[in-house]
Formats: sequence, C-alpha cells, structure tokens
Amino acid sequence: MPNNYKLFSDPVHGFISVPKGLMMALIQQPEVQRLRRIRQLGVGHLVFPGAEHTRFNHALGAMALMQDALAGIEGKGTPVSPTERTAALAAALLHDVGHGPYSHTLEHYLIRDFHHEQMSRRLLVRLAERLAEHPEGDALRLALDIFDGEYERAFFHQLVSSQLDMDRLDYLRRDAFYTGVAEGEVGVERLLKTLRVTPPAGRSDAPVAVEAKGIYAVENFLISRRLMYWQVYLHKTVLAGDELLRAAFRRVRWHFREGRPAIGDGCSPALCFFLENDITGDDLSTRLTATDHYAALDDTDVLFSLKQWQHAGDPVLADLCRRFIDRDFFRVTFLPEQPTDEQLDRWRSQVARWLEREGLARDRSCPASFDEAARYYLTQGRSRHRAYQRERGEAIGIVGRDGQVRELSEMADTAALTALSERVVKPYVCYPKEVDLDLSPAPASSA
Amino acid sequence: MPNNYKLFSDPVHGFISVPKGLMMALIQQPEVQRLRRIRQLGVGHLVFPGAEHTRFNHALGAMALMQDALAGIEGKGTPVSPTERTAALAAALLHDVGHGPYSHTLEHYLIRDFHHEQMSRRLLVRLAERLAEHPEGDALRLALDIFDGEYERAFFHQLVSSQLDMDRLDYLRRDAFYTGVAEGEVGVERLLKTLRVTPPAGRSDAPVAVEAKGIYAVENFLISRRLMYWQVYLHKTVLAGDELLRAAFRRVRWHFREGRPAIGDGCSPALCFFLENDITGDDLSTRLTATDHYAALDDTDVLFSLKQWQHAGDPVLADLCRRFIDRDFFRVTFLPEQPTDEQLDRWRSQVARWLEREGLARDRSCPASFDEAARYYLTQGRSRHRAYQRERGEAIGIVGRDGQVRELSEMADTAALTALSERVVKPYVCYPKEVDLDLSPAPASSA
Amino acid sequence: MPNNYKLFSDPVHGFISVPKGLMMALIQQPEVQRLRRIRQLGVGHLVFPGAEHTRFNHALGAMALMQDALAGIEGKGTPVSPTERTAALAAALLHDVGHGPYSHTLEHYLIRDFHHEQMSRRLLVRLAERLAEHPEGDALRLALDIFDGEYERAFFHQLVSSQLDMDRLDYLRRDAFYTGVAEGEVGVERLLKTLRVTPPAGRSDAPVAVEAKGIYAVENFLISRRLMYWQVYLHKTVLAGDELLRAAFRRVRWHFREGRPAIGDGCSPALCFFLENDITGDDLSTRLTATDHYAALDDTDVLFSLKQWQHAGDPVLADLCRRFIDRDFFRVTFLPEQPTDEQLDRWRSQVARWLEREGLARDRSCPASFDEAARYYLTQGRSRHRAYQRERGEAIGIVGRDGQVRELSEMADTAALTALSERVVKPYVCYPKEVDLDLSPAPASSA
Amino acid sequence: MPNNYKLFSDPVHGFISVPKGLMMALIQQPEVQRLRRIRQLGVGHLVFPGAEHTRFNHALGAMALMQDALAGIEGKGTPVSPTERTAALAAALLHDVGHGPYSHTLEHYLIRDFHHEQMSRRLLVRLAERLAEHPEGDALRLALDIFDGEYERAFFHQLVSSQLDMDRLDYLRRDAFYTGVAEGEVGVERLLKTLRVTPPAGRSDAPVAVEAKGIYAVENFLISRRLMYWQVYLHKTVLAGDELLRAAFRRVRWHFREGRPAIGDGCSPALCFFLENDITGDDLSTRLTATDHYAALDDTDVLFSLKQWQHAGDPVLADLCRRFIDRDFFRVTFLPEQPTDEQLDRWRSQVARWLEREGLARDRSCPASFDEAARYYLTQGRSRHRAYQRERGEAIGIVGRDGQVRELSEMADTAALTALSERVVKPYVCYPKEVDLDLSPAPASSA
Repeated sequence: MPNNYKLFSDPVHGFISVPKGLMMALIQQPEVQRLRRIRQLGVGHLVFPGAEHTRFNHALGAMALMQDALAGIEGKGTPVSPTERTAALAAALLHDVGHGPYSHTLEHYLIRDFHHEQMSRRLLVRLAERLAEHPEGDALRLALDIFDGEYERAFFHQLVSSQLDMDRLDYLRRDAFYTGVAEGEVGVERLLKTLRVTPPAGRSDAPVAVEAKGIYAVENFLISRRLMYWQVYLHKTVLAGDELLRAAFRRVRWHFREGRPAIGDGCSPALCFFLENDITGDDLSTRLTATDHYAALDDTDVLFSLKQWQHAGDPVLADLCRRFIDRDFFRVTFLPEQPTDEQLDRWRSQVARWLEREGLARDRSCPASFDEAARYYLTQGRSRHRAYQRERGEAIGIVGRDGQVRELSEMADTAALTALSERVVKPYVCYPKEVDLDLSPAPASSA
Repeated sequence: MPNNYKLFSDPVHGFISVPKGLMMALIQQPEVQRLRRIRQLGVGHLVFPGAEHTRFNHALGAMALMQDALAGIEGKGTPVSPTERTAALAAALLHDVGHGPYSHTLEHYLIRDFHHEQMSRRLLVRLAERLAEHPEGDALRLALDIFDGEYERAFFHQLVSSQLDMDRLDYLRRDAFYTGVAEGEVGVERLLKTLRVTPPAGRSDAPVAVEAKGIYAVENFLISRRLMYWQVYLHKTVLAGDELLRAAFRRVRWHFREGRPAIGDGCSPALCFFLENDITGDDLSTRLTATDHYAALDDTDVLFSLKQWQHAGDPVLADLCRRFIDRDFFRVTFLPEQPTDEQLDRWRSQVARWLEREGLARDRSCPASFDEAARYYLTQGRSRHRAYQRERGEAIGIVGRDGQVRELSEMADTAALTALSERVVKPYVCYPKEVDLDLSPAPASSA
Repeated sequence: MPNNYKLFSDPVHGFISVPKGLMMALIQQPEVQRLRRIRQLGVGHLVFPGAEHTRFNHALGAMALMQDALAGIEGKGTPVSPTERTAALAAALLHDVGHGPYSHTLEHYLIRDFHHEQMSRRLLVRLAERLAEHPEGDALRLALDIFDGEYERAFFHQLVSSQLDMDRLDYLRRDAFYTGVAEGEVGVERLLKTLRVTPPAGRSDAPVAVEAKGIYAVENFLISRRLMYWQVYLHKTVLAGDELLRAAFRRVRWHFREGRPAIGDGCSPALCFFLENDITGDDLSTRLTATDHYAALDDTDVLFSLKQWQHAGDPVLADLCRRFIDRDFFRVTFLPEQPTDEQLDRWRSQVARWLEREGLARDRSCPASFDEAARYYLTQGRSRHRAYQRERGEAIGIVGRDGQVRELSEMADTAALTALSERVVKPYVCYPKEVDLDLSPAPASSA
Repeated sequence: MPNNYKLFSDPVHGFISVPKGLMMALIQQPEVQRLRRIRQLGVGHLVFPGAEHTRFNHALGAMALMQDALAGIEGKGTPVSPTERTAALAAALLHDVGHGPYSHTLEHYLIRDFHHEQMSRRLLVRLAERLAEHPEGDALRLALDIFDGEYERAFFHQLVSSQLDMDRLDYLRRDAFYTGVAEGEVGVERLLKTLRVTPPAGRSDAPVAVEAKGIYAVENFLISRRLMYWQVYLHKTVLAGDELLRAAFRRVRWHFREGRPAIGDGCSPALCFFLENDITGDDLSTRLTATDHYAALDDTDVLFSLKQWQHAGDPVLADLCRRFIDRDFFRVTFLPEQPTDEQLDRWRSQVARWLEREGLARDRSCPASFDEAARYYLTQGRSRHRAYQRERGEAIGIVGRDGQVRELSEMADTAALTALSERVVKPYVCYPKEVDLDLSPAPASSA
C-alpha cells in the first residue's frame, strides 16, 4: 500500500492525512469543492483581514479532529470498525456541506423557513446515491445514520453534533487563529485526549464524555466560545456588515416583488432562481432544480451581483451595494432594551430627512420615497448568545473516577458555569454614521 | 489626541496600528479595498487550502514592517521626518495596488506588454490627485517619488523595492504562515532589527544595509525564499492550476478573435472590456476607461465567468472551466530539457487521439477539430527561479564593524551564496492525467 | 549612537531590546544574574517538563512589556520623560529581585515573618547606592519611589504593582507558554494597546485604566489567571512537590533545633546561615550579613543539599530527599472540608503503622519514633485562589467613551465577574501513595 | 484498559503520551530523572535566556517523535511488533542518558578518552538488568541491540542514530524553539510523514529513506542545522562561556595535581571522585563506583562548586568562577587561521602584563606567577561544523518513484548540497575584554 493517504498542509492542524478511498472521492465532488468558495465567517473578513478562510478548510479540519478523537477513544478500549471510522470521518467532513454563501446573514433572505442542516442532509443523500457503488459506499450510508442520530452507537452522533462536537472544536480554534484573537485559543488537543466512551466497551448507547481531569479544558472551551461570540461573531462592525448585506438583498427582493426583475440582469442563473421564486425549505426536497441551483451558489454569485448593482438605476440599491463593496458600513449602536415601534418610526424619520437633505434617493428613476428608502438605512436587530446549554440531553458529561457520568455543572465551579449558561441578548440599531441620530428613549421635543 | 490609531488584528503580525490621517484615508479608497478581493497566491489556495489570504492583508503587513524598519533605523541615529514616515508607509501600502486578479497567471492574458508595476504607479498618481487637498497630501506626492526611486534619500526606495524590501519580507512570512510550510518561516523581526542606514546621518544617498550580526538572518531569508519557490510558488499542482486557467482564457480569446463574442455574455463589463479589446500596457496610460475597468476587476469577475462558462456551448471551454472549478487539474511533468517542436507535436497528437476516443470535443456546436482542441489540453512552460541576484546595484549590502558596506557574498559562506545565486530552470509539460503520454525523447515507433 | 541597545532573544516576546546605559548595568549586577539560577515555577518543572524558565527571563519580559505599555500610553498623549522611562523599566526589571529559591514553597521555612517584597525593596536600595554615581543614577532612585508608591504620577506604580501590572502580564503569558497550557494564553499585546492614562495629560494622580474596547481582553486575562491557578500553580502534583520539599526542610530544621547541626555539612554557607539561625524578616534590615547570605542563595544551594541529604544518617530525611530528587512524590487528595485534628491524628497513625510495617524509619541511628516520622509523611494544606479583587483601591478601572473610569464589574458581564471574584479554597491532605488511607469522615470502625 | 497512557504537556510537541508499562517504569528511574537536572544546551542559557530546557525534556521529545515515525512507517505497510515498538521508544528515550553536566564543554575535563555514548550504553545495560523481570523486559534487551546496531531490521537503528534520527530532529526543533531563533525551525512533522522503509515489507535490512516529495524538507533540515550551529551552538558568547568553564576546571585539576585537594572541600563526593582520580573511559566499565559517581553528577554539582570556589584562596580560580557565575565572560575573536605557538606566546605575555598591572594574581597565597595565570586567561580553540556527511554509510537516502534509494546529493540541488557538505573550521582566541590585545599576525615591533 504505497500511498494510502493524501496530505493537506493546514496552518492550524499542521498536516491533515486524508485516506485515499471514499474520503478522497468525497473531497473531489463538486458539492465539496464548492465549499472552497464560501468563506467560513461571511462578512467577518471585512473586520478581521486575515479571516478569509473557507468552509472547505474547516470541513477538512473537522475531519482531522474526528481522526484524533477516534484514536483517543480507541486507545481507551472502545473498538471502532473500519466502516464506522470512515462513516464518522465522512459525517465530520460533510456536516456543513449545505451551507450557502454568507449563510448566517442571508440564509433566510434566499429561502424561507430553511435551516442549512436540511440542505447538508439533502446533499449527503445525493452523494450517498452517487457513490453507492463505491467499495466503501456502505460507510456513506452509515454516515447518514450517524448524522441523523439513528445509529445505535450514540457517541458517533455526539462527535458530529453536540456541544463538544468536532465542528465547534475546529471552528473555534480556526476562527481564533485566522482572526488573530489569541484569547480565543482552545486547547483542542487536550480536550480530545480526555474524551472517553463510558463504559468503554459494551452497551451500544454508551455516551462519550470528558474525563474529570479535562474539566478545566471544557470550561475554557466554553469561555473561549463566549469570547469569540462577543469579540468576533457579534462584533459591532460584523453586525454592521450583516445588516448592510441584508438591506441590499431586501431591496433586490423588493424589485422582484414589484415586477422589476431587470435588476437580475447580470446575476448568475442560480442566484436569480432564488430571487425570482419564493422558495421554501420544503421546496428543496420536492423541487430537484432547487437543490441544483443551491449547489451552484457560492460567495462569487453574491459578490458579483453586488458589484454590478453598484451601477443599478435604483440609487438606494446602488448606494447600499457601493457601501458594501467599499466597506463603508453603517454604525451599530447597542441599546439598553428593545426599541419600541414608536422609537423606530421616529429614528427612521430622522434618517429620511437626512436622505432628503443629502439627496441620496432623489433620482427620479427611483420609485422610492425618502421614507421608503429609510427602511433600508435604519435597521434593527438583536445579538444573542449563550455559551452553554445545561439542559438535559444537551449537557456535556463528565466521567468521574467512579465511572459515573455527571452533567458538567454538577462538577465544575458553579458560579462560572452559571455565568456561561445565561442567555445574553443585546438589541441594537444600525444607521449611517453621518446621521446624528438622537437615540434618547423619549422624543427630544417631548418637553 | 485620544485616538490616533486604528488597530487591525492580523494573525501574522499581531496588531497593526494604522495612523488615522492619510493612511486611513488611503485604506478606505476603493482601489485599496479592491485588494480584499484579490488573493495573494492566485490559484495557490487550490493546493494549500489555508492560503486564501488577500493582497489587502499583505499590503497592510508591508506597511507594518515599514513602521518597524523605520523605528529601527531611527533608533540608530538616522532622522526620519513625519512626512517621510507617512510617505514611506504609503509607498509600502500601495506598492502592489496595481495587481489584477490571478496576476502572475493572467497578467499577459488580459493586457499585452504590461507589468503590474505600471498600474501600481498609475493608481498611485490617481490617488495622489484625488487626495491632493488632504492635509498630508504632500506625503503622497513624496511616496510617488520614493516609488520611482527619485527621492534623494535613497534608502527609502530600497525599503520599498529591493531584494530586502518590505514587500518580500511580508509576503514570504505571510505565505509561509498561511500555507503551513513552516520551513519557509523567516526571522523578519531579527532582520529588521539589524538594518542600518550607513553612515546613519549625513549623505542623503546613504544606503540601508544589514549589520554583520544579521548575516545569517539574510542568508536564511534567501534560503527560505528559494524554498518557498520550489515548495509553493512553483509547486507542480500550482503550475497545473495556472496552465488550466491560462488555457481557458486562451480559448475565450479565440472565441472573440473568431467573432463569437457571445461567449462574453455574463462576463462583467470590466472583464469583457479586456477580452474584446486588444489592450496593451501603453493603452492604460492613454485610455482612461482602461484604467477604470482595470480598477474594477478582481477575482470575483474571473471566477464568476469561469463558473458560467462551464455551461458554454463550446465543449472545450466548458470542460476546461469545469475542471478548474472542480479542481480537476491536469498533470505537470518536469522534463530534463526544453521539448522540441517535434516532440510537442507528437505529444499533442497523442492527446488529440485521446480526445477523439473520449469524445470530449465531438459536439457539433464546437468549431474545434480534435487537433485544435489538443492545443489547450497539452501545454508547456518553464518554471524558473533565482534566489539571489548578486549583480552590482541589486546586491544586498552588509555593514562591517568598520562601517564599510560590502556585498553579501564577500562576507558570507561563499558556497551557499553561489548555490543561491544560480538560476534554476525546469521545463515542464502539462496534460490530462488520463492520457498515458509517452514522454520518451525519441518516438516510441522509431525502432 | 551606533549601538544603543542590546538584544535578548526570548521565545515569548521575540527580541527584547535593553538600553545600554543603566539598564544593562543593572542586568550585569550579581543580584540580577542570580535570578538566572532561580526557577520561576519552583517545583513546577517537575510536573511540566518544559517549564524550566527562570526569574531572570521573567524580569526581562516584565521590562519589555513596560516598554510597550509606555509606548502605548505616550501615543495617547501622556508624556513620559527619559528619566521616568528608565525608572519604570528598572522598577519592572527589579520588582521580583528579592525572590529566593523555591520562594512560594520555602519562603517561610527559611525566614520567619517575611515577604519577598521586603527583600526586593532592600536589594533595590542596595543597587541604588552602588550605582549612585551612574549618569542615570537618578532614575534608580525614582524607581524606588515608584516601587514604594510614593511617586506623584500614580500610574507608574500601577504598572509595577496592581492587578494588571507587567509582572502578572508577563508571568501568566510566560508560564502558559512554557508549561504548554495553551488555554492560559493571554492577549497581552491587545491589553497593552488598550491601556490609557486618564485624563491623558494633566493631573499627576491620573490613573491608568483600560479602554472599554479592551473589556473582553481584561476578562479573558482574569479567566486565564484563574485557569493557570487550577491547572498549574495549584496542580495536585505541584502541591505534592511543595509538601515534600517543605517536609524535608522541616526535618532539617528539627535536626538543628535538636542540636544536630552536623546535618548541615555539605550545605552552602548561605543556606547554613538560615538553617542555623532563626532569622526573621526584620533581621534582614538590621543584619547586613543576612542580606548578603540571602543574595547568595539560589536553587543550586537547595538542590545540592537535598542531593547530599539522600545519604544522611537519618532515614526520614534521607527518604524525603530521595523521593524529591527521584520525583517519587506523595499523593494529594482534596477534601470536602478542613480535616479535624482528630481526623489528622487518625490518618497519621495509619501512616505510622505503614511506616513500621515497611520498616522505613527502623534504622537505629534515627531518633524518630514512627509516630514522629508520620508527621513528615502526612501533611495537610489548603490551596486557595481568587482571580479578581474587586475591592476599592484594588479594582481594575475601565474608561468609558465619556472619559469616566468605572470599576470593571460595573461594566462587564456581572455573572462572570462574580464567579471570578469568589475566593475558592480547597483543603487537601498529602501522604504516601502506598498507604491505603481511609479518608472517610468518621472512623471505619465506628459502626 | 482505562488509563494506558500518561500525558506530559510539552510546549514543543503539545501532549506527549507515554505508555504506562515499561516506558513509565524507565522514566521513573533515577538515571532518567537525573536528566531533569542537566541542561540541554550547557552554557547556552547564559546567552539565550529562554533556553533552560533539560535533557529530560529532549529525551521525552525524541521518544514522541519515534512514535510518530513508527506510525508513519506502519501506515505505509511496514509491520512493527509491540516489542519492537517499545524497544524503539526505549532506545529513543535513553539514547542520551549517559550525558553528564555541561557535556560538550566538560566531557574531556572530567574523564579521559571518553565519549558520552559509552556511558549511555552502560546505563542502558544497567537498566536492562534492573528491569529484567519486568513483563516488557525483552523490549529493553532489544533496545540495546537496536542501540548497538545489531538488530537485523536495520531501520530501527537508523531512527535512533543517523543523520536523520529522532535525536537530531527533536533537539534542532527544541533548541530553535527555546532560544527563540525562529529561522532554525524544522518542519519535523513533514519530514516524519515522508519517511518510508523500502521495500516496505520483506528484507529485514531494508533501510528507512525519505520519499522524493520530502527532499526540500530534508534540505531545509540540513540548512537549519547549519544555521543553528553558527547562530547558537557556536555563538561567540557561548564559546566564551565554554572556555571560561574549562579554564576554571583546568585550574581546579591543577590544584589536585599539585597536591592541594583542599580545593575540593564543598564539592559533592561525585564530582570530587572525578577530580581526584584520573578516570578514563575504560575505567567506567571496570570500576563500578565510577559509574555510580557518574550517575550522581548533574549541573547542580558543577554550579555549586563554582559558587563556592568564588571564595577560594587562589585568586585565579576565584576570579574565573566569579566571572562565570556573574556572566562576566571573556571575549572570543575569530582568526583567519590557526595561531602559531609564537603568536600565542606573544599574546599570553600581553595578558600576563595586564594581569600584573591589574594585580589580579598578586595575592601571595596564589602559587601562580602571572605567566602561569595567563594560561587560563588566554585560551584558544576551533569551532567547526559540517552540516551533512555525504559519505557512503552515513548519507541520507531518498526513495524515487521507482522505489530505488539514492543518496541525497544525487537528487537534490547539487550546489546547495556541496555547500552543506563542506567542513567549516574557524579558529579563535579567547581573552579578557579589558586587554587591548594586538592580534596582528606579525609582532607590532617587527618593523
């Protein structure tokens, strides 16, 4: 067996060895290669210039961590068959294959009532059919069972989808690495070395849990996760980029709804399909072309259209796109509480007056009144995050010296865990820096 | 002055501090933001999945190294005025602003007789005009003189353009970092700490040179450079990606030349402009729209078109593009010497027979005969590299304890330097893996 | 000024530049060179084999961080004079110069009622006297004022001694680096970049505080500190090493008290001095020779004696030392609460019976009965730690956008801060692994 | 098998897993624990303050690399039995167990005609005897055969002792890491992934070689090795430290030879043994106590004595030791060629006159005349290094695609290899900085 592995050089994990059979066949599929054209952090690279890494690189990384996790688990007496191993690697590689471009930002702006996991599952099925005749084709069918949580050896599903899964371990470490946020660094290696199926051999539903000596590593992982949320994923400027991108897409959709699909000239057929049709998550299962179009989409389609729309006749759309391309974002301001409709109306009218003054939307070809335009120039949202779900069925388990598995917060520093289990919600409003918005709770003129 | 700097988080250099005046104004220009959409390594990320880093990030990095270099030089008694400092930072930031998408691969396929430095200069002029009224506008004009090598204090130009300039120091370190090729690691910090203008104060043409104690750091820098060439920049699979991309563009140009510009549907106006017109480097100075179109181009335009052309009527173009998008590259084989025309003809006809057998180019809508098609399926090239130019005027200077500057090879290990100064040339041929090409020097049938 | 700096290569901070005047003169003093022979983590290297780093390296690192902190503060408009700079660097370099060998373990076993800060101050005075005639001698006197908190510009003292001082920033980062506990990694660079004296110029007592954008960096620093405590400084095996070393020294002191000073043969004169005499912290100020002897002590003296005592006539001492040298530590078990005297007596008698059975202390030359011996073979202690003191005068200040300084917990995630402000105390007991000790709260025979 | 491994946290390799059977038993032996008290780089830490790492840490690292190397080799079809694996790990762990304190400096000053490998072998035999009854005792006997090159499967010996052995791979990487000399970084992981036994299964004497794709990694390894020699191991100040330490020991030996063994008061018995007796390498095999004493020696013994000798009656010895302890080294100057005896005499008499002037050796209790003293104050030596031995039997083999193994220089860039194969020799002279020595080739007065 002269060359059983292909090596990928990865700045995060060093070398990643991919077995040459089914795994390399999967990597060569267009659905997986497409992940090379989807950035992991969406607009994040516009705030952290080093963070251009793609979902492809992350998928490889999750697969590499699965290799390490299984090696550790086997070393502690839990047997893993060759088919199980390949299935687990495939599930780790493909867990996110259904992500679209700028997923977290645009997911619901392209397809209604949709979650990317549906699409991951759908593409997994497609790949399993396509590679059904592959000598290791069984493994891909087992991967689907693991993904669905239907394989009897439950720990495989936990490694693919849980609060300590390979996905999270890789993305936290990778995002910390590429953003340069050193504090987000997770001791992934240490964590993997403390995983154990318990009891190691025997009951098929034995869960995977962390040995007691790994408890600080788990805690630190949750803390890093929380830190990455506030410092990266929900960074104010990242939120501002998200809001701008959504505003542009809401505006494009308005054109289509208004019967002005000419705005779609220059869009790729795939993107056009989702703009023209009101596709739902369920359509993806029933309409084959919907899946095909989805599988053709990547960041290129979105960016290309945004670049063309800079020159659109509609000055609102053109300005939103120009701002995105030149990274001339709006400002995000956090609010002490969710703004009322009355407040939003008041603020929007301030923005409308500014637009009128600046003449931005004055062009006659634009059907928008200033008040209409202001709906794209002042938006609101809520960033929210919870580092640890301690609910039954979700919680992280710790194996004591007595072999019993207990929920993390029964064994760790309770005060710290409580802090991590709280859901933090921060409402915000987003608007042009140039507008001197009066955000005081009551109208300035109320006196 | 509460907030004089904006911080960028960079995984390579940690934090990069950008002064808020002219420097931040420059960074916000569309010409500079555009570098965010051009990958530093062209097709390199298809071989090293972590290497998605952009020219924007590199430009920031070169600027950061310039800050360190100037701090070191000043600390050794060479005064630098605020205007000079800003000019030097601007020159470092903008040195590569004229790069286009997939520069090293496509440069000559978009524009004839052109070098990206011409465009960098042209955009620098444009920015200097646009920001002429900026309070630090003088610095930008000085940056242009430094770029042109016309500023009397010669060391500034050396820091921007020489064998030890900030460009090379940043890109080598950055490329090694993102590709994960740890051996390419350069002790940049050490190198910068050993730079010195000599004599430190006085003659305006005093050059910058390396102190004798930095001699191993220089040697190691050259060795790393050589290593990165063979291991990354001229990696066989990278060359294969280059050849495929060029073949696709040659084919598109053929369509235009043959009067079939419909192939350009779906291209961006900017890319179309260069495909339709036979633009030369000189046109860029005389035709304003040429510069505008160039400044609008980035990787998105190229990738978008390649994606669309996968469905082109011409099966040759469609196949080449599909292969690029799905990363189904040809094979590159190095040859002991440059192949003769006779050899190339023989190999091409083998490829043509394989195409005929496989039916790839059989579609009637394709005007290409199999022989014509084979011109895109078998290409040749030469990779060449020379780590160190020891010629007068180019050489790296070393300052001895006596204050005299000598050329590097007078002071370093001669055998090693000789090895590094040699030009290495490796001819290669590139063709589909599926063809079992007989590369023996003489025809197999010659017996 | 051809060579104003001497460079030290440091794996943690890269290059450290030391100005050649007073700073290099200080580094060359025997009192500072002695720190090269005192490990930063005491017995920690016996658990983390990479953690052999010394207090010398840490002192250099703290000085390097002071350089960065001052550069940041100056960049925000707070002037620092050359003398102040040198004084601050000197204070950072010398802040720990009074540490002795295995300080945290042995401090109170060598000198009564003593804290190493007293000795740091005393040695600082001595150096200031010795270098009084140095051209920068003023700076050293100012360093003493800064150390004492008597310099009017209060922020200098804060940088030398507070919850965010250069000492802590360097040691946390350095200890995380050398132990390989990646989760302990602190974003020191980020933290330093967010420090600001506020108001920047004006009142001399203006404090240094962290800008609001650095709040996650501070929180992460405190979390890392807590993590390093539990994972490194209070690691069970580190505690076991501490207890063994203390037991050996208690035994040696017993010999001296019993009038058997022959045990001191082979000790260095410096160590003998502290074993023979009952020195207190106050003696160090009044007895010059005490300071001299202290300044001659380092890890070598302790290790050398432990090695010789392996062959001592007293089997208790010999065994304790042999165990330390061969790293054959006792076991540490954490207890739910502080054990009662009755419990300890019961456990000690179990250990005594084991000693009798094993014959360890049977040798006639040993004056110890088994019960006496057991006092060295079963010890108890409490590890305690509190990551953040939020009390007035100690708290970390955060500067809001309004320029007001507020205490950290007024602005950060309260739940997390509360967790960090709690004092955690864990009692433990330490005894030979070979003894099957019954640690149940009530005697087993109580039924 | 719940806990089969003990984890060591290592800043270089992350976690190192040590199997709990024979391997942990070996690590717990005093002979191996002793390596914790011997610094890997001898006096190197006095130049690179971070480089305090010990031979213990390196031994663990070499063992860890052996694990990786064997995993790679097995993955390519070469079977390794459990006993072979344990034996190979043991041989890697123990390959340097015979090193003494400051080995490279003092080896020949403690024992005549000795090489530390003899002692490593002797201690390996001792451990094999002690652990003969261990369930894995066979493996230790096999380790000895592998060490001796007598095991039929030759590649095991190559992994333990050759130009690409685990020892070199670990120490280069480790020393680069701890000194902070980033350029010395070796892509160890890449190298190990390209090792292959060829043919993989079959002939027992099949050698291990590097796959062709690893050729740049090998070249880079040799280049790094050369760089580390000039930048670290043969750094001028390191040489100065070596010379000072040797001068002190020559002086102590002189005291013993002159019948003044009182100088040995305060030495450890182990060190005294070697100073009093004229031990040769052969004695170590025949005199059991010699081995015992050797196994008790570590850096502590040497440092402790140097500290005491600072106060010796002999001013020559006292001054040499004081200089070493306070790091007040002599200067090293490289010479164009080996100095003649006449030159050395002339230089020594300059030094003697300086000593007379300074009164250093004036004390009557010193039996030395100034001329005698000058023999310790001016010494000479030669630093020499050769990065690659291309001789048959030593050379590194490269496996081509055809499965044939060729010597490295047949396949790599010849000019570079030639440079690396050259032996570089640099004579030097070492003397007090304060002496203004005239090093001109001919006497100044020769005119």
